Amino acid sequence: MAQTEEKDIVTAAVLVIGDEILSGRTKDKNIGYIADHCTAIGIQLREVRIVPDVIDEIVAAVNALRARYDYVFTTGGIGPTHDDVTADAIAKAFGVRIDIDPRALALLKPYYERRGLELTEGRLRMARIPEGAELIENSISVAPGFMLGNVITLAGIPNVMQVMLDAVTPRLRTGKKMHSVAIDLQAPEGAIADVFAEHQKAYPTVSMGSYPTFRDNRPSTQLVLRSTEPDLLAEAVEGLKAKLSAKGFL
Amino acid sequence: MAQTEEKDIVTAAVLVIGDEILSGRTKDKNIGYIADHCTAIGIQLREVRIVPDVIDEIVAAVNALRARYDYVFTTGGIGPTHDDVTADAIAKAFGVRIDIDPRALALLKPYYERRGLELTEGRLRMARIPEGAELIENSISVAPGFMLGNVITLAGIPNVMQVMLDAVTPRLRTGKKMHSVAIDLQAPEGAIADVFAEHQKAYPTVSMGSYPTFRDNRPSTQLVLRSTEPDLLAEAVEGLKAKLSAKGFL
Repeated sequence: MAQTEEKDIVTAAVLVIGDEILSGRTKDKNIGYIADHCTAIGIQLREVRIVPDVIDEIVAAVNALRARYDYVFTTGGIGPTHDDVTADAIAKAFGVRIDIDPRALALLKPYYERRGLELTEGRLRMARIPEGAELIENSISVAPGFMLGNVITLAGIPNVMQVMLDAVTPRLRTGKKMHSVAIDLQAPEGAIADVFAEHQKAYPTVSMGSYPTFRDNRPSTQLVLRSTEPDLLAEAVEGLKAKLSAKGFL
Repeated sequence: MAQTEEKDIVTAAVLVIGDEILSGRTKDKNIGYIADHCTAIGIQLREVRIVPDVIDEIVAAVNALRARYDYVFTTGGIGPTHDDVTADAIAKAFGVRIDIDPRALALLKPYYERRGLELTEGRLRMARIPEGAELIENSISVAPGFMLGNVITLAGIPNVMQVMLDAVTPRLRTGKKMHSVAIDLQAPEGAIADVFAEHQKAYPTVSMGSYPTFRDNRPSTQLVLRSTEPDLLAEAVEGLKAKLSAKGFL
């Protein structure tokens, strides 16, 4: 784990687990949501991986990512069916045991009893939690997520993932927020590339990106400047606007 | 490269390159599209990664993925601005030189001349192609993608990425197509998990996944069975339907 309490920058990765994303059957909606959430709370998302429901693939990805980033969010693979192997994979990645967790069972049992549903072997799988993990509340369908070390294991269904992400957020250490300013131009990015590259050199610590689109069938460009330092960001934005104005682009 | 001409199974990975995806500014639309395309033409997408516009991160991901899969599709980072570093990263990953490519220049020059636009230093960047690469046609905005070894470098803008993907597809080796059958159930997946797990054991080579949703506020489940062998798949589907019927789920 790359955690130190004093660090200003807190980083994360997302690991999406599921054959259905790789086959195209399901279009992922969680990556963009977690990206926005991380940006909003002051965590920098640095990498995403999508892997199939294969334990050894999940183990390799979890271990690569948790060694490198402050947090790893996993989505998917914690349901009741045999293709839900994420909890086992997390336990294997950390080298800890996994079994029915009394806390998770205490949540699931009354939920199914109230509904007159049997606590099948499959449903019991959702109470299997790696040893040492903290549970993460699921206010929609009860079966919990969990956090083990710096790995946060969430459901794959977007609305369930979202309530779990909200539930775990107060437990996360956050860093300086990344501020960003966008400048919209009615010009193709090729026209402003040289000015923009020169400006990047003048402010090497401000991240500057250019995003072309076609608007009303004409090429337009959005320039995005990002920094954790609001004053420096404002200075870089004003300086760039002045240069673009001088060249007739603003 | 894991390529052999005789192989029935052809695999691929996608590498999405761009700070804007990781920050949440842009929601990726390419992964799902390429996943569908691969499934349709007989290539199995096995892994996806998203990395920032940082050369060494791209190099590490390209080299990890190209060693492991038959093809790697990259998206993003081949425009005219300084944050477009994908071509340089691919050259570095392969250890080859990169410079203005006469074939690419011959495409770009008349395009800009016809529009009365200057061939700026930025626009010239889009003619920089790693040594030894084949160009991939861009029928929308001319600046080409390229294919070097088993790495296919495409634009990030979805409609441009899509025409490039169509252009390169005839050059790709494809394998057996993955066939899939979906079974929709008006039951929560927890109810069918045990039957489903037992059926998976009977057909270990047929991939079986369960995908829960809430439909009309009631939990429902889609079971998806996938195989490259249509006869085996049909048998597994019929067998499962019989078991589900016997238990009253169908």
